[in-house]
This record gives sequence, C-alpha cells and structure tokens, in this order.
Amino acid sequence: MVRVGIVGATGYTAVELIEILLRHPDVKIELATSRSEENRPLSIEHGRLRNRIELNLEDLSPAEIAERVDCAFCCLPHAASAPVVSAMLDAGAKVVDLSADYRLTDADVYKHWYEIEHPDPDRLGTAAYGLPELFRDEIVNSALVANPGCFPTTAILAIAPLLMAGAIELADIIVDSKTGVSGGGRKPKLSFHFPECNESVLAYNVGRHRHTPEIKQVLSRLAGTEVDLIFTPHLIPMDRGMLTTSYLRAKGQHNDDQLLELFREFYDRCPFIRVSPQLPATKDSVRTNYCDISPRRVGDRIVVISCLDNLIKGASGAAVQNFNLMYGISETTGLLS
Amino acid sequence: MVRVGIVGATGYTAVELIEILLRHPDVKIELATSRSEENRPLSIEHGRLRNRIELNLEDLSPAEIAERVDCAFCCLPHAASAPVVSAMLDAGAKVVDLSADYRLTDADVYKHWYEIEHPDPDRLGTAAYGLPELFRDEIVNSALVANPGCFPTTAILAIAPLLMAGAIELADIIVDSKTGVSGGGRKPKLSFHFPECNESVLAYNVGRHRHTPEIKQVLSRLAGTEVDLIFTPHLIPMDRGMLTTSYLRAKGQHNDDQLLELFREFYDRCPFIRVSPQLPATKDSVRTNYCDISPRRVGDRIVVISCLDNLIKGASGAAVQNFNLMYGISETTGLLS
Amino acid sequence: MVRVGIVGATGYTAVELIEILLRHPDVKIELATSRSEENRPLSIEHGRLRNRIELNLEDLSPAEIAERVDCAFCCLPHAASAPVVSAMLDAGAKVVDLSADYRLTDADVYKHWYEIEHPDPDRLGTAAYGLPELFRDEIVNSALVANPGCFPTTAILAIAPLLMAGAIELADIIVDSKTGVSGGGRKPKLSFHFPECNESVLAYNVGRHRHTPEIKQVLSRLAGTEVDLIFTPHLIPMDRGMLTTSYLRAKGQHNDDQLLELFREFYDRCPFIRVSPQLPATKDSVRTNYCDISPRRVGDRIVVISCLDNLIKGASGAAVQNFNLMYGISETTGLLS
Amino acid sequence: MVRVGIVGATGYTAVELIEILLRHPDVKIELATSRSEENRPLSIEHGRLRNRIELNLEDLSPAEIAERVDCAFCCLPHAASAPVVSAMLDAGAKVVDLSADYRLTDADVYKHWYEIEHPDPDRLGTAAYGLPELFRDEIVNSALVANPGCFPTTAILAIAPLLMAGAIELADIIVDSKTGVSGGGRKPKLSFHFPECNESVLAYNVGRHRHTPEIKQVLSRLAGTEVDLIFTPHLIPMDRGMLTTSYLRAKGQHNDDQLLELFREFYDRCPFIRVSPQLPATKDSVRTNYCDISPRRVGDRIVVISCLDNLIKGASGAAVQNFNLMYGISETTGLLS
Repeated sequence: MVRVGIVGATGYTAVELIEILLRHPDVKIELATSRSEENRPLSIEHGRLRNRIELNLEDLSPAEIAERVDCAFCCLPHAASAPVVSAMLDAGAKVVDLSADYRLTDADVYKHWYEIEHPDPDRLGTAAYGLPELFRDEIVNSALVANPGCFPTTAILAIAPLLMAGAIELADIIVDSKTGVSGGGRKPKLSFHFPECNESVLAYNVGRHRHTPEIKQVLSRLAGTEVDLIFTPHLIPMDRGMLTTSYLRAKGQHNDDQLLELFREFYDRCPFIRVSPQLPATKDSVRTNYCDISPRRVGDRIVVISCLDNLIKGASGAAVQNFNLMYGISETTGLLS
Repeated sequence: MVRVGIVGATGYTAVELIEILLRHPDVKIELATSRSEENRPLSIEHGRLRNRIELNLEDLSPAEIAERVDCAFCCLPHAASAPVVSAMLDAGAKVVDLSADYRLTDADVYKHWYEIEHPDPDRLGTAAYGLPELFRDEIVNSALVANPGCFPTTAILAIAPLLMAGAIELADIIVDSKTGVSGGGRKPKLSFHFPECNESVLAYNVGRHRHTPEIKQVLSRLAGTEVDLIFTPHLIPMDRGMLTTSYLRAKGQHNDDQLLELFREFYDRCPFIRVSPQLPATKDSVRTNYCDISPRRVGDRIVVISCLDNLIKGASGAAVQNFNLMYGISETTGLLS
Repeated sequence: MVRVGIVGATGYTAVELIEILLRHPDVKIELATSRSEENRPLSIEHGRLRNRIELNLEDLSPAEIAERVDCAFCCLPHAASAPVVSAMLDAGAKVVDLSADYRLTDADVYKHWYEIEHPDPDRLGTAAYGLPELFRDEIVNSALVANPGCFPTTAILAIAPLLMAGAIELADIIVDSKTGVSGGGRKPKLSFHFPECNESVLAYNVGRHRHTPEIKQVLSRLAGTEVDLIFTPHLIPMDRGMLTTSYLRAKGQHNDDQLLELFREFYDRCPFIRVSPQLPATKDSVRTNYCDISPRRVGDRIVVISCLDNLIKGASGAAVQNFNLMYGISETTGLLS
Repeated sequence: MVRVGIVGATGYTAVELIEILLRHPDVKIELATSRSEENRPLSIEHGRLRNRIELNLEDLSPAEIAERVDCAFCCLPHAASAPVVSAMLDAGAKVVDLSADYRLTDADVYKHWYEIEHPDPDRLGTAAYGLPELFRDEIVNSALVANPGCFPTTAILAIAPLLMAGAIELADIIVDSKTGVSGGGRKPKLSFHFPECNESVLAYNVGRHRHTPEIKQVLSRLAGTEVDLIFTPHLIPMDRGMLTTSYLRAKGQHNDDQLLELFREFYDRCPFIRVSPQLPATKDSVRTNYCDISPRRVGDRIVVISCLDNLIKGASGAAVQNFNLMYGISETTGLLS
C-alpha cells in the first residue's frame, strides 16, 4: 500500500485524482492540503466526494507532508509548486508535479514564458517528463515526474510518430487546439463565468500560450534538432475534453492506410492510445485515460486529430499512470474502469 | 427625443437595455456610468456594442446624471440603488429602477428579507410597480417605476388572472421556477463558474428567496387579502430564459378551454402576453419582450406554465415598456423587433 | 462468474450498463443484441467502448439468449420488451427489465397510460419492483426484476420516508421534476435536436406523463391506501442528471433537523442514498449510483430535493444493484468506483 | 414595398430570415412555402413567430410563387433548389438562393463535390456571388444572387485583404473552422442529437467538406490564379456562431499594427465588418449581421481570427444585405437592430 497525499486539493485536477485513487487497490490517500480551506471536509469542498472519503483539508508544511506520505501529487499553480516540490523531495518523498514548473528544462525559457525567475533552477532537467508513451524508461526510475500539460499531450502524441518516422517537415507545424472550460481551473474569472463562455467560442493567447515552448522542447528532443511550430488554443463551451488538429507537411507519400499502420505500430504497447480511422469525438474519451488519434492524408499535408479528457489523460489520469510506473505497479491500475 | 442614461452599465441588464434603446426611435443614450470602470469605452466592456455606440463609462454623481438626462435607468444592485435613485429624483430626473429597492412597500419586510435598513424608506410605496399588464395606469403617471423581479413577473402574470377571477384558493400556491444563469449577474462567483453550473441543476434558497415577499405583496394587493405561497427557484445550465410552473388549487370547474379563454380575455390588450394551448419552451420567447403562458387543468389543480427572457421581459425590456408608458410613447416601441 | 447479456444494446442505458459491467468482477458479458445493427461491432456503435470490448451486435431469439446467458438485462422499449422477457424467463434465464412493462401491476392501468394491451398480463405483479432501498427482500428472491423509472426513483425515494412516518398528507403531493435529455433515448427526434433543446427549458406531458401511475402505485402500496399526486416533468439542456422537487403538506411539526434525522434513519443501511442538509446539485451524483436527498421545512409544507443520474441510479446502475441482490453478490459491487 | 416569399420555410435559415424581414420597413412577406407542412401556421412551425405573423405554409409551384412576389428567398437544400430557382427566374421573379446550387461556376466541380449532375448548368456563372464586401457591384445588377456558404464567408473575409495586398503565399493556406450545431440544419440526425453532440467536439469531413471548392474558387478569382488550401470544420456544442482560424504564410514583414491598418482600409466602407485588435468571441456577433476580424503576426505566419453568426451574416442576414443591394435599398436596412 503506497501512502499518497494531494497537495493543493481544492481544484479540478485534485478531485479527479481523488476519484481515480479511490479506485486504486494499491493506494491509501493519507492527506489533502489547502492553505485557504484548512479543516474543511473534502466532501464539502467537492460534493462528489460526499460519503466517499473522510478527510479534512489540512494546511501542512512540505516536511509534514513528506513524513506522512510516500508520494505526493502536487496540484499547486506554477511558481507556487516548485518550492514545495523541492522541499518534499529533499525530505524524501517522491513527487508527481502537475504544475508546469519542472516541464521545461531551461530556466531562461521558463522565465521568458512564465515571466518569473524559476524558484528551483538547479533541479530543472532532472525531472522525468511524464509522457509514458514516449519516456517510460525515465519515469520508471524517477523520484520526480513533471506531468505534461494537456495541450502538449495531445500535440506530442499526434506528431511524435510522424516526426520520428521522418515523415514530416520539422519547420512547418501548425497545432490548433480546442479545449473545454475546466482546463482554466476552478477559480472564478469573468472569462469562465457561465454567461460569458457558454454559447461562444474564441481563440486566446494567439502566438503566446505557455504550452508552446513545452511542445517545441519535447518535439525538438525527439527530432534531435530544433522544431518550430505555431500553436493556437480555443475555448469552447463544454466542461471537459480537448481536441487538437495538427497540420503537418508530409515528406513522403503516406496514404491513410499507411498512416494508420505507422501510428498503430508506434503505439503498439501503449494501452491508453486508441488509433482509429474513425474521426474521434471528445465524448468518446472523456472520463477515461484514453487518447484517441486519427491521422489523415490531405493533399501534401497530413492532418492528425487527437483528443482526450484534459483532466484525466491530460492531467490526473496521466499522473496516476506515471505513479504506477514509478512504483512498479501495472501501468493501467486504477485507470481502466 | 428623450435623453436617457444607464446608471451602472457593466452588467447584463445594462447591455441588454442599450441594445434595445439603440433600436428605439425616440431615445438618445446620453451617458452610461460605472465607478470601477471609469473611462473605459462601453464597446470594450461589452464586445457586442463594438461599432454600435461611442460612449465611455463615466463616474458621475446623481446630480450630474440628472442634469444630462431626462430619464435614468438604474441598474445598480439593491441597497446601492436607492440613495442614487433618490438623489436623481430630487434633482428632477425620472427613474426606472431595475433593482429591488422600491418594489416592496414595507420597510420592515425589506429589512427582514434583505437584511439591511432601507436607505430611503419615506419613498417606499410611492413608486409604481412596473408590471404594465396589471398596473398600467399607475405607471403612466409616475416619475419612479420599480421594475419587477424576473421571478415575480413570471409568477404574477401566471396567477393574477385566476386569482382575480376567484378561480383558485389563496392559501395553497406553489411556484416552482427554473432560471438561466445570467439572472445571477455578471460578477464571477463559484456558483456561476462554467464547470460548476454547466451540466447540472440545483434548487437554491429554498423557502427563503427574496422574490418571495414581492410575489406575495403583489398577489395580496390584487386579492385584497393576504395570499400565501411557497417559491422555489432552480438554476439550470443556460444563458437566459426563465420558466415558472405554478400549482394552484382550483375553486371552480374550469377546464382547459375555459382557462385559455379566461387568460385570453384578461390579457386582451397586452401586446406582450401570448396565451397558448401549446406548452411553451423558453427558446420561443428568449430575446423578445414576450411572456408565454399556458394554463392546464390537472385534477383539482390548475397548473400554469409561464416563461420569458429573464433579461428582457424579466428586466430591460420591461424597463423600456415602462419608460414608453411614462413618456406617452406607444408601449411596444423598440420592443417588437 | 455470471454470464450476462444486453438485449437491445444500441441505446444509452445499454452503453452505460456495459461500462458498469466491465468493472464488475463477477460478470462476463456474453452477448449484446440488436435487430437493426446486427454484426456491427459494439465499439463502433458506441465509440466509448473502443478497445474495451470485443463483441458484435447479434440478432438473437429469446431462446438463443437464454441458452447463452444466466441473466439478461433487457433494454428494449416498452411493449417490445414483455414478449422477449417472457420468452427468456420461460427458457430459464433471469431478467432485469429496464422497460416499463412489468412495473405496473394492473393491466388496465397499463392499457390506459400506455394505450396498448399489455403483452404478458399474467405475469404482471409477479416481478419485484427494483428499488432495493424499499423492496430489497423481494428482489433477492426474484427471477424477474422490473427496474423502476427514473422519475419514480427520485420521487419515491424522496417521499417514502415521510409517508411511512405518517408525517405528510396523502392527498396533497406535488412532484416537479427536471431531467437531462438522455432520458429521452438515443433515437433522433426534433424535440431532442441540439438547436431545439439547447438553451431552453420546457414542461411536457403536464398531467399525463406515464411515470405518474408508477409513482402512485408504489406510494399507495407503501401507504396501504390510495395516494394522489400531480407530476410535472421538465426538459433541461444537459446530457444527464435529474432533480425532483417534491412538495408535501406536513402533518406534524418536523423541523429541518428532525427531517434530516428521519431520512438518515430510514436510509441507514442504504449505501447509495446520501442524505444531507446541503442542497444537492445533480453534478455531484452524475456518473455515480448515488441518490442525493435534502429535506426542508417551509411553512406548513415539507420540500424534498432529490437527485441522481437518470442513466445510472435511474436505470443501469439500479439494474446492476438489483442484479447483485438477485445473485447474492454484495450490493455495491461494480458500483462504487 | 417589395413583396417577398420564403421558399422552404421550415428550417433555421427561414425563421431567421422572417425575423429579420419583420423588422424591414420596405418589405412585405407574402408567402412561405413547404411541401411537407402545407397549411400549417408558420407560428406553430416556429414558436418564436407566435403572434408575430399570420401566414400558413403553402405548397406552391415556382410559377405561383413568382406571380405573388417580386423576390424569393430560396431556403431549399442543394439540388432541390436549382430547378425551383430556375423556374422562378424564368417567371420573372428575382431570387436570393441560400443553397449551394449557384455558388460554384463550374458544373464539373459541382458534380465532383456534390456527387450529382447540376440541375441547371447553363445558368452557372451567371449568378452574383453574394458577398457584398467583395462583389457589391455585381450584386446590385443581379436578378440571381448565390448567397455564400457560412464557412466560405468567414474564410474569404479573413483572407481576401491579405491576398489582394500580396501579403501572403497562395499555396500555403490552412483554414480551421469551428461551428455551432444549427449549421447542420433542422432535420433530426444522430450527429445533432443533443446527448451526442453536447459536451463534445469533433472534426468532420476532413479534407472533403463541400465548402472547400467554394473558398478556393473565390480566392482564386480574387488572386487571378489558382489558390490551394486545406479546410477542416469542427462541430462544437453551441446553437450558433462560427469562428475560423486561418493560417497564412506571410510574404512581407507586416506587424500587428500594419495588419490592422491593412484590414481597416480594406473594409473601410463595409458596415458589417468590425476589425479589432481584440480577439473576438462568437458571442459578440451572434444574432447580428457583423463579422468580427482580428489579424495577428506569429513568426513567419499571419493568423486571422474571423467570426460571425452562421445563420445571420453566414446566411439570412447576408441574404437580406444582398436583397437590399438588389433593390437599391440602403445596405443596412433591417440589419442594424
């Protein structure tokens, strides 16, 4: 039984994580923390947890957390996360960090995009990037896993097989994503106020979304050379679900069947990737840890549709998948129901 | 040309009002006020108004407003509204007040339900209650109209014809309402955060919603004696629209046809009431000033379905309808397109 | 391992049932039938099942089904269900029938409300009514369970504790329900076409919905005398979730705390009933087998809010709960994750 | 007073058209046709029209229509439209055709994409393409206007200014569109069944949507040479509204300010185009005839966001705008409220 804790447990990734962990046979949830909601029962904070877990939110120091758990899932915002993660690691806990703090490996890039000095630059680059479909081996041996962003997960899973097969140009990549509103977090803001975002769609952060350097970094690492791309996120009126349309310039002559074959082979041993000729709807993968992928040849381009649940395969499900690998537990435990 | 101003112009009733007034041939919008957003162009605050109106939000005193307009539409929250309304009236302006401040006629009832001393108790009872279908004559002669609440509008319009015909018991009235989220205002709150209220329905303020005494007061006035009722509002995942199901105990033998006839006669000269044997959907009246009503006999009860757009017939459309009456303009001007 | 089959597997209750049964450790899904979609893979018919089940839809006779399974979940429409259920029972299978065919015990009442002769009148009254919270003992010994309607489940669970405590009048019951669209089934109709029912709410079948006699029958049985009520369903723009507001006339002086206590005692051994002073949102119980209940005293009435997922506790989850009881499996198996 | 008729009046574009025309001071709606719903009152077919128009649907021949109206708005599906349009023109009526039948100028292209022989090939190329912002002069003199598709309107308005300024490469154009569900019409289909498309997003007709050749044809005409592009539509869970993200390869060095200037000059005399540095939400233009456009420089590409209401500027509003031009009425009449 692995003792785990949820650090920053008032948000959507936290409640999702708890629902998954309650199904996990090898885990005991020892604690859940919050600074602002100390002593509040988890089941009041999240009505879904009523009668399902008896735990009050606690305001704990990293050392206190590390004493009581083997592994911490850190759901704090970026910048707030690194100092806590760092202290918990120092105190001997393993950590899956769901924030952006350990995803980028270069402190300057972090500073440029997040507009703040990285709080723990020395540890940058030491975390495993928690995309098991590509970096399983690193995750297995890691005490710190940087859980990927939701947009990067959809984009990288869509592009990596083509890129590693040399099937596409590296300098002509367009990633157009559509996300549900839960990706914006649980803190009320005008942009996510129901009458503002319901019955509406918009593009945001055009050319300057913080997931851009993350996608670039991972694709460049895979390519062994600099990759360039444009990324545009769109907010659409649904709770959860994310769909990414990637436009790639083909180098070879792959037709639809060959593309399917290429993707299926690439993800042969990946239980959560479903490659299909049918164009996926996010509805099919929402509330599961699956990522659905469908590649298409269109003229001299390849269009790849990929989708998943931003809170599960894009966050908390991936976190548990990583946790399983870190602890030598079967990768799908707690995630296939 | 009547010069008008919008006091408190950052919310949903304000933008709705402006869209209606832009269509109104006899009105000139002179000003729009806001304390917090001073100098911000209206068309930035409300993207829908882009290219349609050149006006910056201003922070103005009641006296300054009264100097520049003939009539002010006051969209401030309750308690904040009365002092401003009072001062504008004193300075010679007419006012349509969309807040709750002048709807109740008894300062003690106001204090009990709104948990605050009324800021302008002496004027209580001097305002016309702005439901033209019932109180047209008072509105015509008034300098101050208290625009009704949205729930009360649906309930009173559904119940008044039966009550005034002596067709129902006065002590056995149940009003069950369903409203879209815009009724909760434009200020971000967790309850109205998209991922919280989307794909969900809940009852709120059971037995203690502030519109209860307003409905009671108006029905009691019409009945000439105390009326009692239960009112339960529900929040449903849509922008706008409101539907009320009223359960009344029949005193007579009215069947469906007789009920239709009774309602049609009652609302014979009311251009915005549509009585129909077809059960209405809110979609049919949303973005119009209509209220759809359909009465049904069920056993020893009469069930009346009434619906409207909470921001139009439930707020800003009614405000313009009242304004038209106050200024001797045809009642439907600006409201039938 | 109990071998089960899904009869009529193209609809929403079927896919929901399959998702639950895939998590159930004591069940093997042997077959899934459809007349119109024979040979189609289940995972094509329902994209959510991709990679999760290898089964093609089959067109099978009741005898063929009964030969291959121990228990059949019958998801056919009313009137189509009874002949198939009857033949499967005769051939030795147990059946959980999700249709309305065996819920009513009186063939005349069935004919009056469903406007058709009952296809299997002799078996009427022999089925257990599948509400374990009230009829657990009957279900345990039954070969045929009539799974309750979703509206009746919410209404009966809200009213039964008060009725059996003698706390309410039997002739003054109003049930006002709000349901998501999936309750209307998967067959495309104009009423459920997205642009028709999105952003809208309506009441339907006022005074004549077919769940009315089912609620009456069960409450009358519990009361030992005839109970009368009005039931009004409303369609609201969400996938799933159902909330019922029941208005009862109090006979005693129960206050809020006493009501809570009464409900908590009544449902003491019911793992899927959550009684709470907090007004529930459907979001908290959606995709679970829980029913949330919150009673309130309002004047001389008691208002009870009850809600659940219409496809789970209102259909497929209840079906598995009943199945567990029929087979001596722990009641919550497969249903608590 | 111009006498007009709506041919095929049961769909969403028809009801939208009628709502606009009811506001139009120079128009009298003489008739509305339907084969399947003959004699049904328009106000029953479309609940929104209750009390607003007294007209029954009629089943009329093209000759009968042409006798009673000056101008027909034809809202029939493609292939059904051309024979009726042709006959009405021959009988002397003017026509705005909202179908796809007269948009393409080449019968072979039509046959390739619509998989049917064009019913009236001789008239192909004689219709004005009803995008007043680009082809105002042709529309003014035309008896037949082919109203553009909704996707093409968003794409062409976004790309034309750059293309005509020589600011972009002609062979590297990606158009990624997101549309609400009403674009799919009013006929119930599983894809548009509420529980299927709510809370979900999907790409459809990747690489083979029928609006692709329409966009290509118009851009090629403007460029004076063949233009190539990829177009991908996505269905998102909202009633109406459409947003297009166009990715173009820059030829020059235009920065954001210069792009804004370029677009503003290009659309200087176009009352329904709103160019803005603020990224638009569809909510701001829904239920108006505006198209909002915001261009951005991102690396060596230009990203243009354009959006509008698919039923208004993308269909019925544009139809009335064209009608106004055909009849020498001010372009904005009936469209600015």
